[in-house]
Amino acid sequence: MSLTDTQAFAAPASCYAPCETAATDAGRGVLLQRLTLRHAGLRELRIAYEWQGPADAPVIIVAGGISAHRHIAASAAYPEAGWWDAQAGADRALDSTRFRLLAIDWLGSDGGLDVAIDSADQADAVAAVLDHLDVRRAFAFVGCSYGAMVGLQFAARHGARLGRLVAISGADRPHPYASAWRSLQRGIVALGCSESGRREALSLARQLAMLSYRTPEEFAARFDAPVQLVDGVARCASADYLESCGTRYVARTAPTAFLRLSESIDLHAVAAETIAVPCVVVAIDEDRLVPLHTLEALAGKLGARCRLERFSSPFGHDAFLTEPARIAAILTDALCGGAA
Amino acid sequence: MSLTDTQAFAAPASCYAPCETAATDAGRGVLLQRLTLRHAGLRELRIAYEWQGPADAPVIIVAGGISAHRHIAASAAYPEAGWWDAQAGADRALDSTRFRLLAIDWLGSDGGLDVAIDSADQADAVAAVLDHLDVRRAFAFVGCSYGAMVGLQFAARHGARLGRLVAISGADRPHPYASAWRSLQRGIVALGCSESGRREALSLARQLAMLSYRTPEEFAARFDAPVQLVDGVARCASADYLESCGTRYVARTAPTAFLRLSESIDLHAVAAETIAVPCVVVAIDEDRLVPLHTLEALAGKLGARCRLERFSSPFGHDAFLTEPARIAAILTDALCGGAA
Repeated sequence: MSLTDTQAFAAPASCYAPCETAATDAGRGVLLQRLTLRHAGLRELRIAYEWQGPADAPVIIVAGGISAHRHIAASAAYPEAGWWDAQAGADRALDSTRFRLLAIDWLGSDGGLDVAIDSADQADAVAAVLDHLDVRRAFAFVGCSYGAMVGLQFAARHGARLGRLVAISGADRPHPYASAWRSLQRGIVALGCSESGRREALSLARQLAMLSYRTPEEFAARFDAPVQLVDGVARCASADYLESCGTRYVARTAPTAFLRLSESIDLHAVAAETIAVPCVVVAIDEDRLVPLHTLEALAGKLGARCRLERFSSPFGHDAFLTEPARIAAILTDALCGGAA
Repeated sequence: MSLTDTQAFAAPASCYAPCETAATDAGRGVLLQRLTLRHAGLRELRIAYEWQGPADAPVIIVAGGISAHRHIAASAAYPEAGWWDAQAGADRALDSTRFRLLAIDWLGSDGGLDVAIDSADQADAVAAVLDHLDVRRAFAFVGCSYGAMVGLQFAARHGARLGRLVAISGADRPHPYASAWRSLQRGIVALGCSESGRREALSLARQLAMLSYRTPEEFAARFDAPVQLVDGVARCASADYLESCGTRYVARTAPTAFLRLSESIDLHAVAAETIAVPCVVVAIDEDRLVPLHTLEALAGKLGARCRLERFSSPFGHDAFLTEPARIAAILTDALCGGAA
C-alpha cells in the first residue's frame, strides 16, 4: 500500500536536543492511500511527502499556501531551494537539527485529481502519512495561509495527535470577499480556450492573486512611476513584476491544480469550538485576504487555548514569506514554550 | 460644425431662484469637434451631451464613473432612469429647478475611438461643449470617481471658467495598486478571443471591478452563506450578484470602450498645485480604489482652496451611488455656500 522512495522514519522519541548530523538527514516518499474525500467519496490517492531532521526528533508538520509543496527547505539530500528556507533548516526557527520537519504535496497539486478537494481531506492525508511513518503524535503543526486552514482541520479532526498548532494568516472559514475574488480567478482560467489562452489565463489569475497577497502600501512604495504608454497601450509600473510572477507560476502549475486548490480554500470550514489543541494564531494587520477581525474572531472561539500574535506589515498576506525576522521570532517562541 | 438634436441653451444668468417649470426643460445634442488629444493628436470627435434645468440658471457640470454617461437623471423629456437619480433632478441636491445640469458621454464610450484617451481630453471636451452652448463660466463641476479626475483636469486647464469643484472619490493620479488591478481587467478582456469569449471576458473584468468598488465589510454582511458545490464546482454566495453585474455591463458596453476608458483612468495625472478653483474633496474611509490618504494628500496640495469631507461607508468607492443621504448633504452644502 505504500511506495516510498526512501525509508520510512522511526517513531518519535522524547529527545529534544540538537543532533549534529541531522541537517543532512532528509527523505521523500509517496504513499498510495485510499481516503474518503468529503465531497468526492472514496478515492485511491498518491500522497507525496518529504521529511528533514533527526529520526528521533519531535515531528513538526509544516504547510504553506496552495502553491507550496513538500520541499520546505533546502537540505544536503535535496539542495534545491524550498518554499520556506527563511524559516526551516539547520538553526532556523523550524530547526531541522532539533525537529523532524514533515510536509506533503497538496492533494490535487499535480493536476491529476479533478474533483472538489476539502481542507479536511488534506488534513486526513497528513494523518495518513503520520500513520504510514508510525508517528503517533506530532509535536506541532505550523501552517501558513491554506496550510493554516489545513492545520485547523487537523487540530479539529486529529487533535489527540497534535501538541500545538501555529496558524498563520488562515481562519476557520474563507472570507466572502476573498471567495468572490478567487471565484473570478477561476473564471479567468476557465476562459482560456486555446492552449496559449490557457497559459495566459492562468498567468492573469496568478497576477490577480498576487494583488490579494500584497497591499496597496507596498505597491505604492515599489511601483510609484506613472503609467506609461507602450505601443499605444497603457502599461503600469508593476507590469513586469506581476507578469514574471504569472510566468513562473504557469511554468510549475497545472490549470486543474490551480482550479481545484483555489476552490478548496473556499470549501474550507472548520468548527473552531471543537479544537482542543493549544494554538498560536498569527495575524497580519494589513492582510486583505484574511482580515484581522476574522482571526480575532477565531481566537475568540478558541478561547483560553489560543494566543493571538499580530503585527503590521506592508506585505499583507504574504508576510509569512517576506517578513522572516518577525515570523521567526513568533515561531521560536511558539515552539520553545511549554509543550502542550 | 455642430449637430444638435435640440436647441443650444442660453448663456447663464445670475438668477438662482427656483423656476417652477424648469423640471421639464431638458435637451440633448451632439457636437462635432476637432480636438487635439494628449496622446492621439488631432481628431474629429463626436461629443454627445445632455442638459436639464432652466436656461437662465447657473450651470453645474456633472460627471460620474467610466460607465456613466450624459443622462444623469430622469426628466420629463427623457423619463428613463439616469445614473444619479438619487442626487439630480427637481428638488434633489443637484436641483434641476435651480441649476442647469450638464453632462457628456465620455470620449471613447461608444467604442469607436480606439486610441489612448486622457482625462485632460475629457475636460477639453466638456470645455468645447461649454463653448458650443455659449456658457462662459460654470457655477460648479461635480465629479465622482473618473468624473472627479476629469473635474480636477477641468479646474487645472479651464479654471477661469469654473466657480467651484466637488471631487468625490477621485484623486490627482491613480493609485499604483488600483492601476495594477485595472491592468489585469484589461488583460482579461484581451484574452477573450471568440465572440462568446469576449463577452464572458468583459463580464469577468466588470465583476472584478465591482470587487474594487465595494468592500469586504459589505460582502461579509450580504454574502455570508458558505460556498456551495453546484455540479461539482464551488459557487460562492456572491456569484449571482456579480454575474448579473457583469451581464448588465456587457449588454451596454463595447469592449473597446471599456479598455480605453479603464486605461484613461491610469493615464490620468494632474498638477493639483496649479488648480485655483475652490474645491470640496470627498473621501470615503473604506475606498479601496482611491485610498483615503491619497485624497488627504490631494487636499494638502490644494491648500486653503480646499475643504476635505470624509465619511465611513461599507460601500467604499461606490458610496457616491449607494449613500444618497450622506452625499446629498455634502452636495447641498457645497453648492449653497458662498459662490467662489
